[in-house]
Amino acid sequence: MSNVSPPPGEGGIPDASAQYVVGVDFGTLSGRAVVVRVRDGAELGSGVFDYPHAVLADSLPEAGSGVRLGVDWALQVPNDYRLVLAHAVPAAVRDAGIDPADVVGIGTDFTACTMVPTLGNGTPLNEVPGYANRPHAYVKLWRHHAAQPQADRINALAAERGEPWLPRYGGLISSEWEFAKGLQLLEEDPELYAAMDHWVEAADWIVWQLTGRYVRNACTAGYKGIYQDGQYPSADFLSALNPDFAGFVADKVAHRIGRLGEAAGTLSAQAAEWTGLPEGIAVSVGNVDAHVTAPAARAVAPGQMTAIMGTSTCHVMNGTELRGVPGMCGAVDGGILDGLWGYEAGQSGVGDIFGWFVNSGVPPQYHHDAAARGLGIHEYLTDLAAAQQIGQHGLIALDWHSGNRSVLVDHELSGVIIGQTLATKPEDSYRALLEATAFGTRTIIEAFNASGVPVTEFVAAGGLPRNRLLMQIYADVIGLPVRTVGTTQAPALGSAIHAAVAAGAYPDVHAAADVIGAAPADVYEPVAENVAAYNALFAEYTALHDYFGRGANGVMHRLKAIQRAALTGRSRDCSASGVPAGDATERAAAPGAGVSA
Amino acid sequence: MSNVSPPPGEGGIPDASAQYVVGVDFGTLSGRAVVVRVRDGAELGSGVFDYPHAVLADSLPEAGSGVRLGVDWALQVPNDYRLVLAHAVPAAVRDAGIDPADVVGIGTDFTACTMVPTLGNGTPLNEVPGYANRPHAYVKLWRHHAAQPQADRINALAAERGEPWLPRYGGLISSEWEFAKGLQLLEEDPELYAAMDHWVEAADWIVWQLTGRYVRNACTAGYKGIYQDGQYPSADFLSALNPDFAGFVADKVAHRIGRLGEAAGTLSAQAAEWTGLPEGIAVSVGNVDAHVTAPAARAVAPGQMTAIMGTSTCHVMNGTELRGVPGMCGAVDGGILDGLWGYEAGQSGVGDIFGWFVNSGVPPQYHHDAAARGLGIHEYLTDLAAAQQIGQHGLIALDWHSGNRSVLVDHELSGVIIGQTLATKPEDSYRALLEATAFGTRTIIEAFNASGVPVTEFVAAGGLPRNRLLMQIYADVIGLPVRTVGTTQAPALGSAIHAAVAAGAYPDVHAAADVIGAAPADVYEPVAENVAAYNALFAEYTALHDYFGRGANGVMHRLKAIQRAALTGRSRDCSASGVPAGDATERAAAPGAGVSA
Repeated sequence: MSNVSPPPGEGGIPDASAQYVVGVDFGTLSGRAVVVRVRDGAELGSGVFDYPHAVLADSLPEAGSGVRLGVDWALQVPNDYRLVLAHAVPAAVRDAGIDPADVVGIGTDFTACTMVPTLGNGTPLNEVPGYANRPHAYVKLWRHHAAQPQADRINALAAERGEPWLPRYGGLISSEWEFAKGLQLLEEDPELYAAMDHWVEAADWIVWQLTGRYVRNACTAGYKGIYQDGQYPSADFLSALNPDFAGFVADKVAHRIGRLGEAAGTLSAQAAEWTGLPEGIAVSVGNVDAHVTAPAARAVAPGQMTAIMGTSTCHVMNGTELRGVPGMCGAVDGGILDGLWGYEAGQSGVGDIFGWFVNSGVPPQYHHDAAARGLGIHEYLTDLAAAQQIGQHGLIALDWHSGNRSVLVDHELSGVIIGQTLATKPEDSYRALLEATAFGTRTIIEAFNASGVPVTEFVAAGGLPRNRLLMQIYADVIGLPVRTVGTTQAPALGSAIHAAVAAGAYPDVHAAADVIGAAPADVYEPVAENVAAYNALFAEYTALHDYFGRGANGVMHRLKAIQRAALTGRSRDCSASGVPAGDATERAAAPGAGVSA
Repeated sequence: MSNVSPPPGEGGIPDASAQYVVGVDFGTLSGRAVVVRVRDGAELGSGVFDYPHAVLADSLPEAGSGVRLGVDWALQVPNDYRLVLAHAVPAAVRDAGIDPADVVGIGTDFTACTMVPTLGNGTPLNEVPGYANRPHAYVKLWRHHAAQPQADRINALAAERGEPWLPRYGGLISSEWEFAKGLQLLEEDPELYAAMDHWVEAADWIVWQLTGRYVRNACTAGYKGIYQDGQYPSADFLSALNPDFAGFVADKVAHRIGRLGEAAGTLSAQAAEWTGLPEGIAVSVGNVDAHVTAPAARAVAPGQMTAIMGTSTCHVMNGTELRGVPGMCGAVDGGILDGLWGYEAGQSGVGDIFGWFVNSGVPPQYHHDAAARGLGIHEYLTDLAAAQQIGQHGLIALDWHSGNRSVLVDHELSGVIIGQTLATKPEDSYRALLEATAFGTRTIIEAFNASGVPVTEFVAAGGLPRNRLLMQIYADVIGLPVRTVGTTQAPALGSAIHAAVAAGAYPDVHAAADVIGAAPADVYEPVAENVAAYNALFAEYTALHDYFGRGANGVMHRLKAIQRAALTGRSRDCSASGVPAGDATERAAAPGAGVSA
């Protein structure tokens, strides 16, 4: 399953004198391991293992008596992660055809912020007798969004107190992160909170399983754990949130922090048994899927922005110093590469928007025509859109269907499309949405440029770069070359890079990335004529962005408020999903309610 | 085919002592006749006849050697209208089961502005030997839009000169009207223009066919012929447009004008033969489909606004004096009812927008589910939308997909939808579009109210009032009762009313309308709670309406300009439809155009 051809003469044949590292990427639904040759980065084999319990969104598993979960919950079962070590890693080694004795290190990356509550020895609470039927004993997956009320209180209090760390996160601590999820645990299951010795990032918990040692990684400590300038939020702040939360940092969170690329420890006997790898090899400090992608894409130099483009887009980039960039998701010292400031920004909806459109806004004939041509509906719409001149569709859209993360940091914003006529076709709107996300990216890049953290190159990773029209639009909109990444498993490759550094094969991640990181797949050069055409449309985007996003017209906030009132205050019963029970006969909204004959 | 039940005891049985009138409505694709009892308005029978040549949009018929037509042309063949007299009228009489000798009058209404070029005796030029293959010899249907360049020049010159009639039309003379179409004829076929003795509204041409006399009607003379305060645009103005156009009014247009409801003459022997009706019965002055609907709906008193709601909406209302209402389509003395000022306003897209949405924006599953329930897709979406609380969808839309007629008079405006999220469903957007058109109507009503022409009642005619949700939304949005009309053939009934007045059976149209006009089908009362909810959303609509429509952000105009440039300047070849030939390989827009590996 190697995606990079080895140099001529070397073939894919195992090399008796070679050393190998294993990178393991823990995603939302599965874990994927790759075997990489240390000296040249050749990807020789891979293995994948689906989590048996996937995501728990409705109820706990049988072991937890099927207890029902609330709205916006998303849990996982930590043993599923151990099973990845036991299945995907040996599978990758077999696929590579190497002798596992030649593996010198293993590295991992994880979704984040994904949190495991544990005892002092790392045992997840759901594995503690008597706790299996308590939802808070399980892993809270990154997309567990039920701690929004706690996040709202954290943000309000931090803003009110002027906490110095708040600006490092664009003024907004996410409900997905350590503190909001921890506060929810405390407030909803205080007994379990009391029993919890550590509130552990899954990225670190898996390393703990590999090494027997708990080391926090600098990346999640900074981006998700509000660790800035050597400290976490103060006990005073925590106490003001909830007096019982005062000791959260000291008791549950604070722990030795490891730098990215260093070894957290060595492979334990237990983990050697699971994986089939040699006991005692280096295990690198934990890391995050998005952040390891930068070295995998050979994009760790200041100014090289790596965009992981999927349902949403995460932008990571190194800078030499700390600057305040409006609307970033976080700036963390050593958060991507030790010794540099790691910046993260994000677009909360990208591929999700395209998916929503094709699922809900494309008529039967298009699906039929796509199928008749043997194309997926995305491909078919892309082909139609690609035949257009820039601006031909007469549309401009705002890419806020999932709110806006960077640079406005406002989840109450929503989508806009302007310019539709009776002649507007699905491919017109589709292309306008592709372009809108490119304009959103340009807005982020311009914020970095204006803040003294210039973006000089754009590297596109993730699933969306397969769409060549999309990549050309991005190049033309941002006016920079767009480089795509020559591997389909960038995160696992990034973890392998960290394993190689932890094993001492390279002096640092930058050096390892230069060799092991994937070569470009394609480089899309901006076309001058297109850049000029998009400059005009970007000016329109910016005017609308500022009008709807910066307070001139708060219509989107008011529409959300009206929507919430309609869904709660005015309906008599709400289902668990927040949608009203739907009484079509209710007088207020029923058709013909006021009819008299 | 009567749609109104006669009073008990009378049945639908012909009444030996009764008198009848015939109303004939000439639509875009067919003509429809109804037989109405004079004393009580009972609709006893009807007949319909489809125009054999329908609309000529691509080429002339065989008699015209199939000559190709240009973009935006729309012609008709005048003899098709005579065939309606010969087929639909006798069919209606047969359907009614009456003795044709008991018919005392006939009235007609027509689409407008639909223009016939004729010789001095009323012969259409296409019937003149040698002219059958000249496109300009045919009827220019209302929706012939190829005279837009001429309309643009008329508007620019009139504005520059401050012509006093311009404000009577909201500042815009339509390309559909007499002067633009006449100027196009002059400039594109001057020989034919020279041969033309009269430039005749089809509404008057059909009366000419019935009576042998040419009488202009006050309605089209005012609304379409720019006849105001006893005069047409001056020869000086016409000469400035084109020196050869100086005599247009004096030579081709000016003619005796008849008041609505009076007799233009009596049925000729020839027309008696066509129709089977008695020679010598009264024939009323010509009229327009929208304008005759007001009396058919018993809505001729000042303040009663009749909205003919179909693909677009036309609003007609009488007022006691002339006021300047911003953005109206026209204010004409005696334009609807003799003795009152007739106001006309319009929304250029209504049902068209709903149709565009269901055709181009609704996914296969919805079509499947609708079919499984035996519903049309409009009905199914309406049912889903009807179950919602007001504001639940979180959306606000502007109904400008066909531009905005009243009150902004700007055909370069375009559609907007704000508030879409990944959870937005087709029924959400559909309901938002229904509401947007209601907000557009409220905007027109408020303009009338603010100008001293208060709207006190809203009467909905046309096809859309069948949608009960839509009617309740309108009532709740405008805060007035919405009355629908108890006939499916309101225009023909309105023509019958005029026939009855012309025959002397009633003293005037108002009196005849009170008896013959259709009773209400339903009255939708505004629900106070809903009115309050929509007030909040209408405030949002108005803010966006003014922002995009009154110059704060001219993005829609700029998008149109960009679109035109993309479609013309940058493409190498244009098809007849104005869409570029589509060279998908053209470098400027092709996917991956700038790719280097």
